Amino acid sequence: MINVSVIGATGYVGAELLRLLSAHPGVQINKAVSKSFAGKKLHDIYANFLPERELELQESGGKFGADDFVFLCLPHGQSLVAAPPLLKKGHKVIDLSGDFRYDNTDIYEKWYGISHSAKKENREAVYGLPEFFGAEVKKANFTSNPGCYTTTSILALAPLLKEGLICEKGIVIDAKSGVTGAGRKEKLAFSYCETAGNFKAYSVPLHRHTSEIEEQLSKLSRKDVCLLFTPHLLPVKRGILATVYADLMEGVTPETVTAAYEKYYADAPFTHVLPHGKLPELKYVVGSNNCMIGFEVSPRTGKIIVVSCTDNLIKGAAGQAVQNFNLMNGFDETLGLPRTAWYL
Amino acid sequence: MINVSVIGATGYVGAELLRLLSAHPGVQINKAVSKSFAGKKLHDIYANFLPERELELQESGGKFGADDFVFLCLPHGQSLVAAPPLLKKGHKVIDLSGDFRYDNTDIYEKWYGISHSAKKENREAVYGLPEFFGAEVKKANFTSNPGCYTTTSILALAPLLKEGLICEKGIVIDAKSGVTGAGRKEKLAFSYCETAGNFKAYSVPLHRHTSEIEEQLSKLSRKDVCLLFTPHLLPVKRGILATVYADLMEGVTPETVTAAYEKYYADAPFTHVLPHGKLPELKYVVGSNNCMIGFEVSPRTGKIIVVSCTDNLIKGAAGQAVQNFNLMNGFDETLGLPRTAWYL
Amino acid sequence: MINVSVIGATGYVGAELLRLLSAHPGVQINKAVSKSFAGKKLHDIYANFLPERELELQESGGKFGADDFVFLCLPHGQSLVAAPPLLKKGHKVIDLSGDFRYDNTDIYEKWYGISHSAKKENREAVYGLPEFFGAEVKKANFTSNPGCYTTTSILALAPLLKEGLICEKGIVIDAKSGVTGAGRKEKLAFSYCETAGNFKAYSVPLHRHTSEIEEQLSKLSRKDVCLLFTPHLLPVKRGILATVYADLMEGVTPETVTAAYEKYYADAPFTHVLPHGKLPELKYVVGSNNCMIGFEVSPRTGKIIVVSCTDNLIKGAAGQAVQNFNLMNGFDETLGLPRTAWYL
Amino acid sequence: MINVSVIGATGYVGAELLRLLSAHPGVQINKAVSKSFAGKKLHDIYANFLPERELELQESGGKFGADDFVFLCLPHGQSLVAAPPLLKKGHKVIDLSGDFRYDNTDIYEKWYGISHSAKKENREAVYGLPEFFGAEVKKANFTSNPGCYTTTSILALAPLLKEGLICEKGIVIDAKSGVTGAGRKEKLAFSYCETAGNFKAYSVPLHRHTSEIEEQLSKLSRKDVCLLFTPHLLPVKRGILATVYADLMEGVTPETVTAAYEKYYADAPFTHVLPHGKLPELKYVVGSNNCMIGFEVSPRTGKIIVVSCTDNLIKGAAGQAVQNFNLMNGFDETLGLPRTAWYL
Repeated sequence: MINVSVIGATGYVGAELLRLLSAHPGVQINKAVSKSFAGKKLHDIYANFLPERELELQESGGKFGADDFVFLCLPHGQSLVAAPPLLKKGHKVIDLSGDFRYDNTDIYEKWYGISHSAKKENREAVYGLPEFFGAEVKKANFTSNPGCYTTTSILALAPLLKEGLICEKGIVIDAKSGVTGAGRKEKLAFSYCETAGNFKAYSVPLHRHTSEIEEQLSKLSRKDVCLLFTPHLLPVKRGILATVYADLMEGVTPETVTAAYEKYYADAPFTHVLPHGKLPELKYVVGSNNCMIGFEVSPRTGKIIVVSCTDNLIKGAAGQAVQNFNLMNGFDETLGLPRTAWYL
Repeated sequence: MINVSVIGATGYVGAELLRLLSAHPGVQINKAVSKSFAGKKLHDIYANFLPERELELQESGGKFGADDFVFLCLPHGQSLVAAPPLLKKGHKVIDLSGDFRYDNTDIYEKWYGISHSAKKENREAVYGLPEFFGAEVKKANFTSNPGCYTTTSILALAPLLKEGLICEKGIVIDAKSGVTGAGRKEKLAFSYCETAGNFKAYSVPLHRHTSEIEEQLSKLSRKDVCLLFTPHLLPVKRGILATVYADLMEGVTPETVTAAYEKYYADAPFTHVLPHGKLPELKYVVGSNNCMIGFEVSPRTGKIIVVSCTDNLIKGAAGQAVQNFNLMNGFDETLGLPRTAWYL
Repeated sequence: MINVSVIGATGYVGAELLRLLSAHPGVQINKAVSKSFAGKKLHDIYANFLPERELELQESGGKFGADDFVFLCLPHGQSLVAAPPLLKKGHKVIDLSGDFRYDNTDIYEKWYGISHSAKKENREAVYGLPEFFGAEVKKANFTSNPGCYTTTSILALAPLLKEGLICEKGIVIDAKSGVTGAGRKEKLAFSYCETAGNFKAYSVPLHRHTSEIEEQLSKLSRKDVCLLFTPHLLPVKRGILATVYADLMEGVTPETVTAAYEKYYADAPFTHVLPHGKLPELKYVVGSNNCMIGFEVSPRTGKIIVVSCTDNLIKGAAGQAVQNFNLMNGFDETLGLPRTAWYL
Repeated sequence: MINVSVIGATGYVGAELLRLLSAHPGVQINKAVSKSFAGKKLHDIYANFLPERELELQESGGKFGADDFVFLCLPHGQSLVAAPPLLKKGHKVIDLSGDFRYDNTDIYEKWYGISHSAKKENREAVYGLPEFFGAEVKKANFTSNPGCYTTTSILALAPLLKEGLICEKGIVIDAKSGVTGAGRKEKLAFSYCETAGNFKAYSVPLHRHTSEIEEQLSKLSRKDVCLLFTPHLLPVKRGILATVYADLMEGVTPETVTAAYEKYYADAPFTHVLPHGKLPELKYVVGSNNCMIGFEVSPRTGKIIVVSCTDNLIKGAAGQAVQNFNLMNGFDETLGLPRTAWYL
């Protein structure tokens, strides 16, 4: 039984993490920290929590147990401040913000507009995408959880780039995300009346996740990947679907593509590739920690179309964090994680 | 051609009113006043307005034309201040707030918690429910537009109470409204993620519209009506459906009920009663200025179930205001108003 | 480890049951029977099932293990035929249809229009509402799972009627359900375009669940309960919210009401009563096996308003079946069941 | 006053057309033909029609007036049969199917899998995209109304291709449509429970509209356009948003792009180009006959991103048909058409 504490417990990612942890057989929730709601019970903010009704929200983590495993669900910039002292005290930490996701902190500083004040800790951080860095995560004390769009996009593209099946230039990722991706915000743009029945692109053409996708794909493929990433806001609560377009190298067949995916994901418990021509839908993954990938080829245009789906709050955030937690603690990678999507 | 000005132009009711007025053949929009967005173009706030792109939002109405017809789409309390000087200058005014809806200002003060500072003007105000007060509206200079729940509920109940077909005690109105009923608000409770897929009751058991419904029904039926009104928040943008329960007087048949409705609504261009046993749905009215009413009887329990539907932004607010405007200006009652709901 | 088979595996209730069972630590899924899709893999119909990809859908249950626990997720009428031979062979059975829910089969025959051909088995069937019949369920070989509206309504009303706090006459249940309640149907009325943004009442005034609610409440309270039940179709996938209106007996205070609920539900792991004045919302229960109840009183009208919420597919169907399964097999009542709603 | 008849009156496009025509000041609706519902009133199928309650649905159009203007809202293939006799009798006709949209009937036959049996009439048909063929439409007796995806895509791309601002190779159109685009169908895939909260790509990589877009763009630009078009199903009722990716020619600036759009659309009453960097959303156009276009450039990748939005039932079908009707009858192009989107 591992004692865990969650800092930033009342954002949507924090609450989802608590929901998953509350059903995890190897976890004892110790502290839940929420600046905004300190002093209240978790149940006052999220009335869905019933057996955990009495969990009190605390202002700071001063009273962590010495051996607490700590999850940071803080806004970008705040983890830079919160992580170093925790690591110093010997806590194992998973950070869900963007603060420690970059090997090259210059890229972070440029795209986030924040000076990186914890470069030493940044060097210790392992990029927590278990499909490619699972071995490192197992040995890590500090894991940086990837972004939601990033996870969905990298899992679609990395095998194709690593195997040289697509051109590294000209890639377009047209991604669509549910509204929880924006977090728990009192903003008119995310109000029901402005969002329901609507659809829009946003942060065009320079959404931050572009840089995270490019850095990881370049590292994994040893190529210089520069791509166009366009996110859209779907009128659904959960889920990301990315439609990825790339130029196929000559002679590449669907069989080659399937084989490339199988090479990397055959043993991945949560990343599933559909047979050629069958494409995943949001409802195949929402509610689970799965990433589901399908593809089609267009001989007329020489392009491959890859569709990749995740639940942005689970495989895109809290679930992947639990997956990394399992690896860091010697648990089975799937322990306590939902393997079957809700569908309904 | 009547010059009109709208004060409170950027709330949802104000914007809907501008949308209707922009298609009204007898109207020239003169000024649109919005404290929050003064200096911007209407198109900056509501990008759906295209031919009216250049309409500028103004801070105050100082530059009204002398003969402007003025619509007040202000929050409760603010019309108490805004209406008197306009009436004094001779403007015809329709107020869409709750401020002038009560014959008895004590009731207003009790349920709204606001001291009524314009009792003289309140006496001049005609209650703008054309189905019952159309003749008065035609002669009025100042009309108070009824509430959305109120319109939907009164149109369902007034004929039955006036004709003595139901008991005035024990009436229950279980009403469900779309989210635009809450207005244009940066509130977490009305955010997409908190509202989509959800449903809840609110303001139980003392929603303000209870008092407006009771005062009007008591006046119309000359009985002392005291009822229970329970609003709920539907995950849709527009529309109110009220399910009304009342005890039928002995011997009342469906034919009597239909006849009572026909007596009052045979000539009403926007209030339509379905044959006994057929009940309206939101999509039959949303997008139009119609109120649609159906009923069923339950001999086992002695009750009648009446279902009444409106679009809360149209017949429940902006559309009814235009209907009153038409009456006050000698236009055909239906001029410029949508008579066919969108359905899709 | 109990071997279980599910007959009627590809309706929404069957699929939800398989989803819950696939995460249940005491269950081995043996057979999934689906007439419509025999020969296909479960994954072909519900692509969300991943680790269970290979589960084959079978035409009949001929190859059940001798000790299989069988769930029947069949349409009304078909369980009358399917249950008797299974019981005869010694299988423990839970039926999720309406076929065995009535003590008095005359009521069933009248409201369902089906002749009851299994009256002997009907006498053996225990009504599977654990909050009131848990002791009987523990000893049962054959359990009839209550209806979704019924569960939600009875849990709201039974304590108040049993304790004599409300009048048994004049009760109104205004219930609203998500669309999964209608099952997996190729019907225009349940298509996206006809349902999204819409809301309507249906089966007024004689929905079948009226009779089930009345029989159970009459039995539990030893009174002759005759009430009005009005279901509505909500544009959400899951969840039932029932707003219940009843006349409070004189002198009944909120404290008395709370005490009555506590008397019956203090130890119920899934039925939770909120403090007086706090009302539950759909998102507090959807995704979990919980029923959440809140109430408010209206001194002006002498009525109590009770709001009761469940997830119609879980506590209203598949989850309650698993709860009964747990009781029938000596497991902890909560084993494998979701206790925390999704909220998002 | 023009007498009009609508054949195929009870599909979603037919019903939307009747809704628009019922508010058109120059139109008298004569006959509404519906095979499926002949003998019923329009109100029985679409209860939103109120003043037109009594319009009877007829089995065939045998009783058309000699001078009736006829709209064909039939499935693909059926217009091939229906149009020729109507044209022969001298009716002016607008066909909303795909049957007469191609200059080259070989393309039609290949992509629709239907033998083209009305090639003579096909030669007479004018492609009804008023922004580019308005002059021809004015003189036409027979107009073929463009597809919804097609309209949205061509309006985004034609000016850029005609002016040589983008490369004609490598264009990707990632389009997202509301569910009404699938028509009024009793299909599980379009049921509420399967569609709400979901999102998916479909008809990848060979949706029929690809060929229509390519033929028109090739004709307009005198280049050989071969592109990739990927449609997705949005969980909304109405609206298409197309995100278009193309390689910008060297030296092309945002100003050049804006100027190209202005060159073709400055006088178009329904096609509106936003200033560089501002992108349209569905709610800016849904409910209106507008097409709204915005763009952004990505110097990093050399691409332009164009976002184009329409209401698929209005500018993408019934509204554009009325626009063509206006041109064919000498009315103002905008007569009777909604110019301001609903927004809410």
